[in-house]
Amino acid sequence: MNYPQILQDIAREVSSLYGQGKVADYIPELGKVSPRQFGFCLHTRDGQVFTHGDSDVKFSIQSISKVFTLSLVFAHLGEAMWKRVGVEPSGNAFNSLMQLEYEKGIPRNPLINAGALVVTDMLVSTFRDPKAEILRYLHLLSGSNDIQFNESVAESERKTGYRNFALGYFLKSFVNLENDVDQVLDVYFHQCSVEMSCKELAAAMQLFVHHGVEPNTQQRLLTMSQTKRLNAVMQTCGFYDEAGEFTFAVGLPGKSGVGGGIAALLPGHYSLAVWSPELNKKGNSVLGMKALELFTTMTGRSVF
Amino acid sequence: MNYPQILQDIAREVSSLYGQGKVADYIPELGKVSPRQFGFCLHTRDGQVFTHGDSDVKFSIQSISKVFTLSLVFAHLGEAMWKRVGVEPSGNAFNSLMQLEYEKGIPRNPLINAGALVVTDMLVSTFRDPKAEILRYLHLLSGSNDIQFNESVAESERKTGYRNFALGYFLKSFVNLENDVDQVLDVYFHQCSVEMSCKELAAAMQLFVHHGVEPNTQQRLLTMSQTKRLNAVMQTCGFYDEAGEFTFAVGLPGKSGVGGGIAALLPGHYSLAVWSPELNKKGNSVLGMKALELFTTMTGRSVF
Amino acid sequence: MNYPQILQDIAREVSSLYGQGKVADYIPELGKVSPRQFGFCLHTRDGQVFTHGDSDVKFSIQSISKVFTLSLVFAHLGEAMWKRVGVEPSGNAFNSLMQLEYEKGIPRNPLINAGALVVTDMLVSTFRDPKAEILRYLHLLSGSNDIQFNESVAESERKTGYRNFALGYFLKSFVNLENDVDQVLDVYFHQCSVEMSCKELAAAMQLFVHHGVEPNTQQRLLTMSQTKRLNAVMQTCGFYDEAGEFTFAVGLPGKSGVGGGIAALLPGHYSLAVWSPELNKKGNSVLGMKALELFTTMTGRSVF
Amino acid sequence: MNYPQILQDIAREVSSLYGQGKVADYIPELGKVSPRQFGFCLHTRDGQVFTHGDSDVKFSIQSISKVFTLSLVFAHLGEAMWKRVGVEPSGNAFNSLMQLEYEKGIPRNPLINAGALVVTDMLVSTFRDPKAEILRYLHLLSGSNDIQFNESVAESERKTGYRNFALGYFLKSFVNLENDVDQVLDVYFHQCSVEMSCKELAAAMQLFVHHGVEPNTQQRLLTMSQTKRLNAVMQTCGFYDEAGEFTFAVGLPGKSGVGGGIAALLPGHYSLAVWSPELNKKGNSVLGMKALELFTTMTGRSVF
Repeated sequence: MNYPQILQDIAREVSSLYGQGKVADYIPELGKVSPRQFGFCLHTRDGQVFTHGDSDVKFSIQSISKVFTLSLVFAHLGEAMWKRVGVEPSGNAFNSLMQLEYEKGIPRNPLINAGALVVTDMLVSTFRDPKAEILRYLHLLSGSNDIQFNESVAESERKTGYRNFALGYFLKSFVNLENDVDQVLDVYFHQCSVEMSCKELAAAMQLFVHHGVEPNTQQRLLTMSQTKRLNAVMQTCGFYDEAGEFTFAVGLPGKSGVGGGIAALLPGHYSLAVWSPELNKKGNSVLGMKALELFTTMTGRSVF
Repeated sequence: MNYPQILQDIAREVSSLYGQGKVADYIPELGKVSPRQFGFCLHTRDGQVFTHGDSDVKFSIQSISKVFTLSLVFAHLGEAMWKRVGVEPSGNAFNSLMQLEYEKGIPRNPLINAGALVVTDMLVSTFRDPKAEILRYLHLLSGSNDIQFNESVAESERKTGYRNFALGYFLKSFVNLENDVDQVLDVYFHQCSVEMSCKELAAAMQLFVHHGVEPNTQQRLLTMSQTKRLNAVMQTCGFYDEAGEFTFAVGLPGKSGVGGGIAALLPGHYSLAVWSPELNKKGNSVLGMKALELFTTMTGRSVF
Repeated sequence: MNYPQILQDIAREVSSLYGQGKVADYIPELGKVSPRQFGFCLHTRDGQVFTHGDSDVKFSIQSISKVFTLSLVFAHLGEAMWKRVGVEPSGNAFNSLMQLEYEKGIPRNPLINAGALVVTDMLVSTFRDPKAEILRYLHLLSGSNDIQFNESVAESERKTGYRNFALGYFLKSFVNLENDVDQVLDVYFHQCSVEMSCKELAAAMQLFVHHGVEPNTQQRLLTMSQTKRLNAVMQTCGFYDEAGEFTFAVGLPGKSGVGGGIAALLPGHYSLAVWSPELNKKGNSVLGMKALELFTTMTGRSVF
Repeated sequence: MNYPQILQDIAREVSSLYGQGKVADYIPELGKVSPRQFGFCLHTRDGQVFTHGDSDVKFSIQSISKVFTLSLVFAHLGEAMWKRVGVEPSGNAFNSLMQLEYEKGIPRNPLINAGALVVTDMLVSTFRDPKAEILRYLHLLSGSNDIQFNESVAESERKTGYRNFALGYFLKSFVNLENDVDQVLDVYFHQCSVEMSCKELAAAMQLFVHHGVEPNTQQRLLTMSQTKRLNAVMQTCGFYDEAGEFTFAVGLPGKSGVGGGIAALLPGHYSLAVWSPELNKKGNSVLGMKALELFTTMTGRSVF
């Protein structure tokens, strides 16, 4: 396929959507980003890389980080981790704390905030220096050592993330956090503050394309079965309230973040990262969602 | 691949699970089925059929019928239908009526009971003789004219299906049923009472394998995009409360029924039907779920 | 106290509120009532009666009927009835069906619709001709034989009361209705359609003022303890979503109806009935609520 | 009435209930209390005091403190306070965080934990030294200067009160806390740790018996209307999940605490305090609840 042409066509078409969304401003630091940016990177199984636009610009990966900490923890703890967090879609906003209360402190899945906090708590229990471990892991997966936390974004979240603190204490009250709430949240806010470019992100997702083998070093980090499961979790739970809509329209496992990034993949074939800061009402990138839908439609390739 | 061998291995392994589930008895008629039965049928894209065990025995397809009425209605109404029913996973039991109330009468998706009732209501509004239309459609898809309603099962449901009546009146109170509750439920109970064998069911699912083209007649019944969407809905919403668990363990779009049947597919590759009457606590066939998990693991092929 | 003066002052003050509410129109028959009407009747323990305005005009008592069927059933079944219905306030609209589902079919209290349906079901199980029994009881309590059902209001509700049918079937699915849903609803819609004047209603409430003794015949219909309990239920559950607000502002046990009537009492002292058809958003009479608040404030007498 | 005899009869009867409940142990410090204790104090409008048993023993008043901080804040802020907290019963446990989420951060009433935290936040905003103000107020109301915080109980709650921290941060996320969560909780845990005897507690409740006038100093602290409202809130919301049951069985406004104390009153007539550490499953004193029910039954006097 003529990917460069496809990327160019997509970029042209989505550019008409500028202005339809809003840059996340609940964290003051995130609100400073210039809205009219669009980056796209396609990374095929055999290592070809196709890019368009701002694909080298670093952005705050935010919730996309949950996929990486989840895979890191899953590799270390295996099936045991599913005692403390489920794999069911969370439904909608309606469910957040209500659901956690209803289900007695077991978050529905590891990609909603409550579940990600439990995963981060496992990370804190597993590694002596969990923050360093996160960076080391991302350097390995992306093949780039130039990936860092943005301390002012992390600090900004710490000062205003009341709801995450509420979730943390609520989990603690159900005895589903082992470590101090403050410590878990410190790591969590740092992982969310990581800055990566589309190019780096697409590279890091290759682990899931290659069924658990990191392609540069040929290390097996996850079993095939574990990778299948992570891809399945991304498919059903990766897009907040739009999991169904996204599966419906795009048909790829992936994960979005309020920084405007989306990472996705077709297992065994390619990974993708797209970024544009304006978000729709459900917190997903307006141009990013459209770009992915166009990509699977134009290439005729999705998991369905 | 040596499919006959794989099916035989699967059958041997799952046979150790007899006795771990319970035949559905909330409808007296269903409770009469002998529990120790197991049928499996694999139907490949190019028309090869592999069977094992009770693959010719007819059973009550129950909720699997929702997939067929949905595709029939979608083909006729197109995107307009999504104003009255969503495409998001429903989460868990917790959500049933609560969610319907919370979301003001718009069911989360067309595969939960409330959503299926709305779909059946559309069917009633669209066809002069909706029950005949359902049979005509199933005859076409399966290539078998020997598919009928079981009137005593339908009657049994009509007499005891209080919760479905409650859902119907509740939808009506939100002005999301156009026809009389009694009429919609009559059609609904009939569609659920349809009896098919694994072989017929696997054949009928070929429509979704072939991206919307009915392979025997080469008629296009659904657009490619519509088929992608239906497969996505089955993936995220097809297994009651176990949508996530199933996606996680099996990785195929599909739909289960309390008669003990499960239909599933790998788009572009094959369809499957499996049946065994004993159900787990969430209402899915114990042997059927395990058989599907084994099949995707042994063949190494799933959407992920 | 100069009650005639107090009633006159109240009537003058509340008349400024005309136009702030809306006549119930969800039942077509109810929507035909002329909005600018106001009736008030005070009935003291020793039988003095003070009236103002349209106190002889008959109106649809609607949910006020729940108090009478409840007392009738309680007198016959005693404490046993509380196995099937609770005595806790229901909180808000949020809770209706959700709560019923959450609490497995046991309505929170007998004055919300679900609870009233269970009470009516008990009535149907207890009396051979439950509709005749209701009228007989109301004739006894009010001392007037000129109290009837309004058949066209009952029929109007039967045709449009989808939500009540939903509740009925939902209760039935939890095995908390003994009789057919249609039969229970027929009696229920009839009891709601009863027409009484403020004067008749205030007289009928004297049973609760006199701690369970019907004052005209000196018959004891309820024990003192039963009467205390019924008054307590009216206090905490009598005003839909405004139970707290009403207790807070007025401080009397009572019950409102969407026909615009409110009946209330100060145990051991007096009963009151007030009527004006315009309702606030929570379904209580605008002028009626204000009149009661003014009455307890001006007389300085409430349970608190 | 022969109150000494009545108290003696009650004490004899409730003593058979020892062992049916459990001392609160979620706070380690509270678990140290010896279970077989029972104190009762009746304080009439004209200042007569009747006591029985351990009526001079100090105990942790816990949630009973909410009534005092509420009255203190209400006196200072007046009606404006009801913008941030409601006056509706909260229904049941089901509602706690779910309800707060559903109602966008406005707690249903000031006597559930979330509402009490908002009230304490108002206290922190109103007074320079809120902790000193609480003690000053309790000294005034009870006529005793020997009332203090128990610092080890407060510290014990601070270390284990994860759920209260969760509520605090959740309220903060809805912008319904003005001050730091830590600061509000520090005051809150201190107010709950206050130790008073039945005698002191019954004396302090006289403010509400006297319609807002503190009887010793004859100071008017609350208007009559404010007192009516506070009594109404206690009536409908004072007993956790048993508000309805308590109103039903006892018929007095009041407030319970997990220390085993209950304070109640008949407006215009008397106040009561009863204490016994063993709690039922809903967190109310087993002997205390029964003692109050017997008292209103034996004296034939309740608000109903």
